[in-house]
Amino acid sequence: MPIVTVQVTREGSTPARNSVTAEEKAAIIKGVSEVLLNVLNKPLESTYVVIEEVDLDNWGWGGLPTEQYRRIRAAAKS
Amino acid sequence: MPIVTVQVTREGSTPARNSVTAEEKAAIIKGVSEVLLNVLNKPLESTYVVIEEVDLDNWGWGGLPTEQYRRIRAAAKS
Amino acid sequence: MPIVTVQVTREGSTPARNSVTAEEKAAIIKGVSEVLLNVLNKPLESTYVVIEEVDLDNWGWGGLPTEQYRRIRAAAKS
Amino acid sequence: MPIVTVQVTREGSTPARNSVTAEEKAAIIKGVSEVLLNVLNKPLESTYVVIEEVDLDNWGWGGLPTEQYRRIRAAAKS
Amino acid sequence: MPIVTVQVTREGSTPARNSVTAEEKAAIIKGVSEVLLNVLNKPLESTYVVIEEVDLDNWGWGGLPTEQYRRIRAAAKS
Amino acid sequence: MPIVTVQVTREGSTPARNSVTAEEKAAIIKGVSEVLLNVLNKPLESTYVVIEEVDLDNWGWGGLPTEQYRRIRAAAKS
Repeated sequence: MPIVTVQVTREGSTPARNSVTAEEKAAIIKGVSEVLLNVLNKPLESTYVVIEEVDLDNWGWGGLPTEQYRRIRAAAKS
Repeated sequence: MPIVTVQVTREGSTPARNSVTAEEKAAIIKGVSEVLLNVLNKPLESTYVVIEEVDLDNWGWGGLPTEQYRRIRAAAKS
Repeated sequence: MPIVTVQVTREGSTPARNSVTAEEKAAIIKGVSEVLLNVLNKPLESTYVVIEEVDLDNWGWGGLPTEQYRRIRAAAKS
Repeated sequence: MPIVTVQVTREGSTPARNSVTAEEKAAIIKGVSEVLLNVLNKPLESTYVVIEEVDLDNWGWGGLPTEQYRRIRAAAKS
Repeated sequence: MPIVTVQVTREGSTPARNSVTAEEKAAIIKGVSEVLLNVLNKPLESTYVVIEEVDLDNWGWGGLPTEQYRRIRAAAKS
Repeated sequence: MPIVTVQVTREGSTPARNSVTAEEKAAIIKGVSEVLLNVLNKPLESTYVVIEEVDLDNWGWGGLPTEQYRRIRAAAKS
């Protein structure tokens, strides 16, 4: 009876998108539920998956809001 | 000093509603706070309750987004 | 399909006990599941309840570990 | 590799504001990341911070929605 | 920069075991991290996975501690 | 009335220690509570802090259990 919580930033997986699509959400739900079926024999019907989309402003990394930190890392690599 | 987190799908409790109402939220807060008072003697003022409403797309069950899985279950029963 | 997470300090509800008992846990599970049945018509079988017991050292309140803060509050009241 | 989750009510820190500002969020991210650097030697780049803003209706305290409980406490003090 | 939290009961996946093994935990970590790589293009190094094992007493289902509820369901099916 | 959850691996901050000490936990509680006081004017007494120590086996990074991933990164840098 697992519960899987997936927290991701609210943004698109390609430049042309600005959010996670319903198809991507369905694929995440399917994927992680199957991991628990395959590894721990948990029936699909006993697994709940909750996806939480977090605004970029609300996600911190490197002591900074994510977008600022990404810019710094990108600049450091170039 | 308990913390109770209640995660529910963002939908109405009857077909005529499409979200949890303020009255229902207040009743959930009152109910679960009283459970902790009655069972563990935790004063009401020491309990925090956080209600998280989760979009149906973001809640998975049976390896599928909830609405799809509910349709399959409903069809299987009929 | 609610998920209810109950976080409480790992301690007894009376001076003679030093942990939450199995009976108290069962009463919490029953109580909060019934709140969701009564308020939102969620069937008991669709609700998961997870109880997390947190060591007193690991719970902060008033900027201090809980036991220290409780002593200060108790002293202030007497 | 810490994860810090900060849950606050969705409201302004002064009467003139009705939400947490981007500057305040950045200051929270910076502040808690530095606590983990200073206390546990965790590098800033290994800490994720997630801020969750919770609608006032969805936050319970004292067995009531927060705004109701605050009014009662304010009245009791005056 | 996803965070995936996997909550499972603390028990073995076969009658001969009484806990999740280190190999199974590694397989869960690998599996869910790859789901996020494949579906959302999230690099493996940006994903944190936290596995929380919950004692059976602390997990409620059907308004009961899990073991009691499982016995009732098993009896109903036989 | 913030709630701050701090998840860290269960290990020492120096080679001579194998867990987070009570003093370090108190410093984390004090530090993050003060951040919320300073940034959002939240009184110390309204903030709960919960520290969750996660076994190294139960924390995944880079698609691997943390210790394995750390060894790979350390080897790559040398």
